[in-house]
Amino acid sequence: MNRMPLLLCLALLLTGTLGLSSPAKAEDAPAAEPLLQKPVCRVLVAYHSLTGNTAQMAQGVAEGVRRATGAVAVVKTVETVSKEDLQAADGLVLGSPAYFADVAGKMKTAIDDWNWKMKVDFTDKVGGAFSTGGGQAGGKEHVLISLLLFMINNRMVVAGPLYQDKEGDDKWAELGATAMTGPLDPGVGEKELDAARRLGERVATLAAKMKAE
Amino acid sequence: MNRMPLLLCLALLLTGTLGLSSPAKAEDAPAAEPLLQKPVCRVLVAYHSLTGNTAQMAQGVAEGVRRATGAVAVVKTVETVSKEDLQAADGLVLGSPAYFADVAGKMKTAIDDWNWKMKVDFTDKVGGAFSTGGGQAGGKEHVLISLLLFMINNRMVVAGPLYQDKEGDDKWAELGATAMTGPLDPGVGEKELDAARRLGERVATLAAKMKAE
Amino acid sequence: MNRMPLLLCLALLLTGTLGLSSPAKAEDAPAAEPLLQKPVCRVLVAYHSLTGNTAQMAQGVAEGVRRATGAVAVVKTVETVSKEDLQAADGLVLGSPAYFADVAGKMKTAIDDWNWKMKVDFTDKVGGAFSTGGGQAGGKEHVLISLLLFMINNRMVVAGPLYQDKEGDDKWAELGATAMTGPLDPGVGEKELDAARRLGERVATLAAKMKAE
Amino acid sequence: MNRMPLLLCLALLLTGTLGLSSPAKAEDAPAAEPLLQKPVCRVLVAYHSLTGNTAQMAQGVAEGVRRATGAVAVVKTVETVSKEDLQAADGLVLGSPAYFADVAGKMKTAIDDWNWKMKVDFTDKVGGAFSTGGGQAGGKEHVLISLLLFMINNRMVVAGPLYQDKEGDDKWAELGATAMTGPLDPGVGEKELDAARRLGERVATLAAKMKAE
Repeated sequence: MNRMPLLLCLALLLTGTLGLSSPAKAEDAPAAEPLLQKPVCRVLVAYHSLTGNTAQMAQGVAEGVRRATGAVAVVKTVETVSKEDLQAADGLVLGSPAYFADVAGKMKTAIDDWNWKMKVDFTDKVGGAFSTGGGQAGGKEHVLISLLLFMINNRMVVAGPLYQDKEGDDKWAELGATAMTGPLDPGVGEKELDAARRLGERVATLAAKMKAE
Repeated sequence: MNRMPLLLCLALLLTGTLGLSSPAKAEDAPAAEPLLQKPVCRVLVAYHSLTGNTAQMAQGVAEGVRRATGAVAVVKTVETVSKEDLQAADGLVLGSPAYFADVAGKMKTAIDDWNWKMKVDFTDKVGGAFSTGGGQAGGKEHVLISLLLFMINNRMVVAGPLYQDKEGDDKWAELGATAMTGPLDPGVGEKELDAARRLGERVATLAAKMKAE
Repeated sequence: MNRMPLLLCLALLLTGTLGLSSPAKAEDAPAAEPLLQKPVCRVLVAYHSLTGNTAQMAQGVAEGVRRATGAVAVVKTVETVSKEDLQAADGLVLGSPAYFADVAGKMKTAIDDWNWKMKVDFTDKVGGAFSTGGGQAGGKEHVLISLLLFMINNRMVVAGPLYQDKEGDDKWAELGATAMTGPLDPGVGEKELDAARRLGERVATLAAKMKAE
Repeated sequence: MNRMPLLLCLALLLTGTLGLSSPAKAEDAPAAEPLLQKPVCRVLVAYHSLTGNTAQMAQGVAEGVRRATGAVAVVKTVETVSKEDLQAADGLVLGSPAYFADVAGKMKTAIDDWNWKMKVDFTDKVGGAFSTGGGQAGGKEHVLISLLLFMINNRMVVAGPLYQDKEGDDKWAELGATAMTGPLDPGVGEKELDAARRLGERVATLAAKMKAE
């Protein structure tokens, strides 16, 4: 259905050919360079973590980002994120533990300032969310939703990690990546890290697509 | 920062030139044609409406879609949407009245079947949501959220309408478009239709961007 | 406005006096009876289930209801719930599988009619919610929230199951009871059924408290 | 487990007997006093406000609380709320502006500490929520939901303000009270204050009911 990428390759091959006929020109036309090599796509993974569980999920997201060709992952706690980090990011994945069924207050305070104080313009950056929490229904998913709405409200586009069954008959996405931790659970598990990786890969792939236009 | 569109134009001019030097080749290479004219981007606006308020908002969304160059809007009630309508759509904007703070049951039943029965693959289509409802806090926004999550779960990317103040200092988006109706309110107002139009334009613009890759 | 507590005191004073002076009259005054013995509290557990997982959770909720002294549980699929069932219920626990991150369309259609067509007045009934779903973050919690908001919008009061750690130092509640099912999970587990039971007990206890006024 | 209704009956029987035989003894039995006169119900209205809009809504909530016979309203900013304030409250109404579609970070940080640091037990207290925000769909309702879930997670029961049409045929509740403010709107309006008052009255009435058991 979408044959544009193919056509683009064709166009690039043709322009590439022109370029090859006079290679010296390459230096004279640096503007054409990004067409010849995939532009670097940067994804910032920003999180809040007290016990290390959310930090562990953040590393999983970063691994997933790096799976996407040409994507670079930067992992930081929200308090250490700078205006430059945010401006340089094509994708942004936010993670918080569930404190009383919503984003940790300290995290929300930090990210509120990204617009209030830092005046960052997030328009069309691609976003995703992850969370951790004790209990089976203690608000981990509500945290995802709050973070996704935060990003939509900041003019971003958002999405979730992709899944499909072994036969490829059934395909779906989830709202983000969550890990159950705390008294009822042994901690961050392999399936939960897998979700984090899928989330990172998804956001990086979409961010590259949005940037490639 | 993003010089890709310019470079793409350059590339297209060059390939265009090649094409012009031997116009007969155009027929031999129909695949290259979309590069010469902007691909048509299609947005499906699908809604459920009993009293006509949500239908009126749907028309507002469609007007907004048509503001985006090259975008085509199709407006249908959810019950009349076909598998072909969904497959042809690059963008999808869903609207429902708030029935007891969530999507109308009849609408949800219809859209559940888009995956269950019609087996439509929504991957990377762009989505947005609108809703109507009596009362100030009767669930209009929760309906938006439910529709956005429905689309994320179906592998789509979602976003909301863009706003900025007169000075352009303050820029934000909203979660979708809502209209207060019912006993406490005169019906769909101009500000509410404006939100619907902004939503349509936003989804069409993003859908074109995703498709153009 | 609310003179019930006062009236109740008056009634108790009168029955108390009668009771002491002529206990045999108790049989002649059935209206006063519930004051002398704990009134029966009825909780309706209504659900939608295709594969049996949500039905299994509904049975867990009913078990929990029966743990509360004097509480009666009635378990029905939403389609078979009558106006009388709803009117007789002091508590209402709703359960749905997550279809694309929200309540199943068929369930929503059925419960929309409880007010639209059956004209049931739910004022001050006590509510709780449960859900099932494949995937770790596929919308199970969003379903809980949608069901809780449905009940709040219908004038009910809502709450979640109670927990505490072994030492009793840490006490909390969850938003409802959820069970992860589907391709990534073996089905309804013991911890998930435990949540369902806690939910049933919680709603029954609160419904008795609200009724006892 | 919950033997209060039975004990209440017993207490009433005893005081009833004492009352009839020797009314002067009432003064000697202060413990029984609350049974003879409606116990005072206290509702704490706690909020965060920068511009004064949320503070204005808080006053509306307090007015509504005072409409309920015997109810006392205490209004405080979240930062000034003490452990004693929280413990003394039978009802709790929380209000926040919408910052990027969720609770203000500073407010969330303050209320996170009510459990973390102050170790308050909120079991069975009655809760409600209000919010303010610029824009039509900028997250005001999501803030209500986040605050309601915060309270459910803290073992409270929650509800929303009651409404009915003039004929009394149609009765409903909303999720809380919201006020649209900011560039597109003149500020807190009369309908919005009316919602705040209804919310206060609703929470106070329910809190009295829960306490009266």
